Amino acid sequence: MHELRKDPLLGKWIAVLSDSKGPDFYLEKNAEHPAHGPDDEGSCILCAGREHEAGREIFAIRGGNPPDWYTRVIPQTSPLFQIEGELGRRGVGMYDRMNSIGANEIIIESPQHTICAEDSGIAQMSRVITTYKYRLSELEKDPRLRYTHLCKDCGRAAGEGYRHPHSQIIATPVIPKGIKDELDGAKAYFYYKERCIFCDIADEEMRTGKRIIMDTANFIAFTPFAPRFPFEYWILPKKHNCAFQDIRNEEVEDLGFILMSTLKKMKYVLHDPPYSYVLHTAPNRVPRKDHWHTLGDDFHWHIEVMPQLLKKSGFELSSEFYIMATSPEDAADYLKGASPL
Amino acid sequence: MHELRKDPLLGKWIAVLSDSKGPDFYLEKNAEHPAHGPDDEGSCILCAGREHEAGREIFAIRGGNPPDWYTRVIPQTSPLFQIEGELGRRGVGMYDRMNSIGANEIIIESPQHTICAEDSGIAQMSRVITTYKYRLSELEKDPRLRYTHLCKDCGRAAGEGYRHPHSQIIATPVIPKGIKDELDGAKAYFYYKERCIFCDIADEEMRTGKRIIMDTANFIAFTPFAPRFPFEYWILPKKHNCAFQDIRNEEVEDLGFILMSTLKKMKYVLHDPPYSYVLHTAPNRVPRKDHWHTLGDDFHWHIEVMPQLLKKSGFELSSEFYIMATSPEDAADYLKGASPL
Repeated sequence: MHELRKDPLLGKWIAVLSDSKGPDFYLEKNAEHPAHGPDDEGSCILCAGREHEAGREIFAIRGGNPPDWYTRVIPQTSPLFQIEGELGRRGVGMYDRMNSIGANEIIIESPQHTICAEDSGIAQMSRVITTYKYRLSELEKDPRLRYTHLCKDCGRAAGEGYRHPHSQIIATPVIPKGIKDELDGAKAYFYYKERCIFCDIADEEMRTGKRIIMDTANFIAFTPFAPRFPFEYWILPKKHNCAFQDIRNEEVEDLGFILMSTLKKMKYVLHDPPYSYVLHTAPNRVPRKDHWHTLGDDFHWHIEVMPQLLKKSGFELSSEFYIMATSPEDAADYLKGASPL
Repeated sequence: MHELRKDPLLGKWIAVLSDSKGPDFYLEKNAEHPAHGPDDEGSCILCAGREHEAGREIFAIRGGNPPDWYTRVIPQTSPLFQIEGELGRRGVGMYDRMNSIGANEIIIESPQHTICAEDSGIAQMSRVITTYKYRLSELEKDPRLRYTHLCKDCGRAAGEGYRHPHSQIIATPVIPKGIKDELDGAKAYFYYKERCIFCDIADEEMRTGKRIIMDTANFIAFTPFAPRFPFEYWILPKKHNCAFQDIRNEEVEDLGFILMSTLKKMKYVLHDPPYSYVLHTAPNRVPRKDHWHTLGDDFHWHIEVMPQLLKKSGFELSSEFYIMATSPEDAADYLKGASPL
């Protein structure tokens, strides 16, 4: 089993893989031709027709023409986390370790190797959102899992594992530092203002309009005031809600529409860049309803879309002081104005 | 002037460049051929013989054969921060901005375009360390500058600005989040244990020996227990000292030796990878001596060397939960065992 380790200085957890690799692994990985690999069409186990090779099916939305499914969820083929076992938290000298208990699943977003969900129309995009909702709702029932990540990497330079359109579920037995910092920041703001910082950001962005890419009945898409990546943008529900799993059915299609539309705009403006997106939602074990309906008032789920256009320098990596060559206002203008087919 | 902006959620500051770039900037940047560019030998303004084109000389160590200098410090040609002006902190709606007041300098580590300091011998390496010390000591006198970064990027994929051997000084009017998190973590440990966490880490690493690459009279080089990058390593003074600027003369050569030796090992084992290193030292305005000699007890300067071998995924970028394909113990073994010429 892989090992989780805690950095004693920053409190962040990392995973050390059990099959530790030598220097040649990185040379080979970086030399891989982007157009060839074990995940070529024809050898891709995520494709329709190879379902029997892809491991146990965890979930599927069925129907339509053959292959008779729209989305499928399967276990990650080389999982970072496994569901069976004990957490086994222990100290070793001054350090802390635990077992890599968790969940790691692949969400197959299309039966076809080369057609993304966002190019298949709003019905398919809504099925993808429904699949996300179903898996996050299921995984939060396991009391060992503190946080469920939903993330998508698209393009080799964004670290994608397969070319086939897919996203990934990674449920961890700890709340990772990147998420904890966000929860703490939102809590500090709520303590001071007695308002949700994300609701305030949505109001401010709607008021000035300078960074809005588009909005729908239920969502806004905007470039944040102080982003980490050029052309980074967020999708935020207009109505306060801390947990994505609580998304109402009438909001699913609306989210599918704004995510599909903005991804198409982003891919058009930036010439199909490598990108990742991640869902930020409330941790699993936080009760979301109490007698006074105040729990969960200080967090607000959202999606962060991160195009990977430039390498980060050592200064940026070390200081988290990011340098933006494009202002968020200009980025929003480019994205807002784009009319992809 | 560029604009600094504060992320209201995480408290981090970023810089938005005044000459905002369109999407084509990133396409062109990524299409640049790694072997050609404005910084080719012959057109490189950092080279010996072109001193008159490189702007005002801030500092130099002179002597030896022509060109009569070993190291030089000049202003960054496209500076992120400028020394003249007012901080101008102000609120805009719910957000915070300020002017990009600070310092941004290039430390030229060799008169020759293709010969790194670490390949020029211990005398040159010690001059580079002395140059670092001199500039950090000077810049901490400016009360507007809260933190002085020293960082080196080597290789296009590590974001280097010039091919010519150089490092960079970036002095900022705020303490960036990446540094503040580290200071806060060290302070929390000191509060609880009444000991410096870095001294404890040095003791633990010397005791187990599993992650030590090498040690000298005054320094150890080791792979941290929970790194962010495969083959990442740190150089730490054995004797407690919060500020690099206070390095004693007899330690300068020793630091030059361990930095030179480990860089050569790392480049040999990993086949000359892109890498960055950064100096982490105490913030500028913290008094380091008081009547009881206890100030600065909770921080300990060190150098972090970060090879850039793999792209980070969206999960890693968002959660700061890093996946290590090589264990720090194996990485230390590879580096320790390497005998480059």
